[in-house]
Amino acid sequence: MIEGEEEIGSPSLAPFVEANKTKLAADVVLVSDSPMFASGLPSLTYALRGLAYLEIRLEGAAHDLHSGSYGGAAPNPIHAAAHMITHLKDEEGHIQIPGFYDRVRPISDKERSLWHNLPFDPAALAASIGAETLPGEAGYGVLERLWARPTLDANGIWGGYQGEGSKTVIPAQAGFKLSMRLVPDQDPREIEVLTENYLRQIVPQGYRIRVLRHHNGLPAVTPLDSPAVQLAAKALEEAWGKPAAFIREGGSIPIVSVFQETLGAQVILMGLGLSDDNLP
Amino acid sequence: MIEGEEEIGSPSLAPFVEANKTKLAADVVLVSDSPMFASGLPSLTYALRGLAYLEIRLEGAAHDLHSGSYGGAAPNPIHAAAHMITHLKDEEGHIQIPGFYDRVRPISDKERSLWHNLPFDPAALAASIGAETLPGEAGYGVLERLWARPTLDANGIWGGYQGEGSKTVIPAQAGFKLSMRLVPDQDPREIEVLTENYLRQIVPQGYRIRVLRHHNGLPAVTPLDSPAVQLAAKALEEAWGKPAAFIREGGSIPIVSVFQETLGAQVILMGLGLSDDNLP
Repeated sequence: MIEGEEEIGSPSLAPFVEANKTKLAADVVLVSDSPMFASGLPSLTYALRGLAYLEIRLEGAAHDLHSGSYGGAAPNPIHAAAHMITHLKDEEGHIQIPGFYDRVRPISDKERSLWHNLPFDPAALAASIGAETLPGEAGYGVLERLWARPTLDANGIWGGYQGEGSKTVIPAQAGFKLSMRLVPDQDPREIEVLTENYLRQIVPQGYRIRVLRHHNGLPAVTPLDSPAVQLAAKALEEAWGKPAAFIREGGSIPIVSVFQETLGAQVILMGLGLSDDNLP
Repeated sequence: MIEGEEEIGSPSLAPFVEANKTKLAADVVLVSDSPMFASGLPSLTYALRGLAYLEIRLEGAAHDLHSGSYGGAAPNPIHAAAHMITHLKDEEGHIQIPGFYDRVRPISDKERSLWHNLPFDPAALAASIGAETLPGEAGYGVLERLWARPTLDANGIWGGYQGEGSKTVIPAQAGFKLSMRLVPDQDPREIEVLTENYLRQIVPQGYRIRVLRHHNGLPAVTPLDSPAVQLAAKALEEAWGKPAAFIREGGSIPIVSVFQETLGAQVILMGLGLSDDNLP
């Protein structure tokens, strides 16, 4: 099966699986939409992060204003958006939404030791993306932050004048897109509610706010000790002549949880991509 | 003289005045690019705010990143921009740039009493622009904030995905436009330096920053007791059959300070516009 709608949340495949669940019955589903940990290192991905995605639209005045006539007494939704984004995380990168971390399952000692043996160099990761630092949540290593910790990022922001040169406008409207990568056992529908409640709490006085919900996806995890995972690892080892790495993946593949829930199948991710393929 | 370049800082008129200063010699220059305080109320504008306008461009990684693969360890310049905008003013609206207020001339008791008599209703102003509140610097009345206090506003912001729906991108770049309305005796060139220094101080670690300077303008003030102002007030009173109001204007007309400095002339602003003309 080849799917082309993964990046918009698989709106067709989920109902297709539901409608054909007896035909599709299987013990194990093998998906290859996942990376190898490094070039030449065969990898089995046993967990994925989920996703919640919101859009926030803010309005101050009813129309754009001239900052000469109104500067000093005009609501400015760009400042309101900046205030809200700044108050979604503290200075140490901890997400401030009440209840956000309540269902986060900590990683096991076994996972920690498996990851510890992986060939991973944060400085090389930073260099590969042209970044000077790898900012993130204090108190967690980079791999744990990428795989097993939830995140929050503004994915887009807009408001006012974006052209060349200057325009002294105080815009009536501004907005931003906000996504959160989620980990087992967070539920995107619950996170959407917690996030919207918090957004409505931190919006400064005098701004009208609208919160839109875009697509979401459940996080997923397959037990490391299941027979299917062990067989897949053996197959990879035979093909490559070296043991497979057991890794997680920071991205989301919403259809994986559909396979799990609708077909009752275990899902194994055995992919051949590399994380520096520069997916946009 | 009719000018069409005022909104971009009068780049042609200033050198024209300089080149023709003997031909243009005058005791007084009358400009009518100013508002009446209210419909039916003849008004003389004796002071203008100046302007400084900067653009800030931020870069984290060298190219856009997928939040699945990199979320949790990727620099996000939208968050850096939000952090910077939030730290430019405190929660009470006081601008945090060190030295910013040092040259601000307080208003005189005479001005305070003249303004006190003006027909001004903050609630009507808020209603006229469709705003729920008139946020601004704590400790100052609305008219003083509009006319005699400097301001700071982000006039535009951009970064990441701005289209319909969702895209889980962590953008490499973001930016914002930033303007400050200035009052006598602030100097826009000095304010540009102070602001850029502060911006470079508050930019979070791991982001490359560029600061561009767009056009600027000096604030201007004409003494209320000068013979020219008194004669203009008398002329307005004769024409309208009622006394003229003495007001300031929150906008900037950079050419006014050129007339003052190059021609040595007093400048009187006697305009007939209304502030709810919805200038963009």
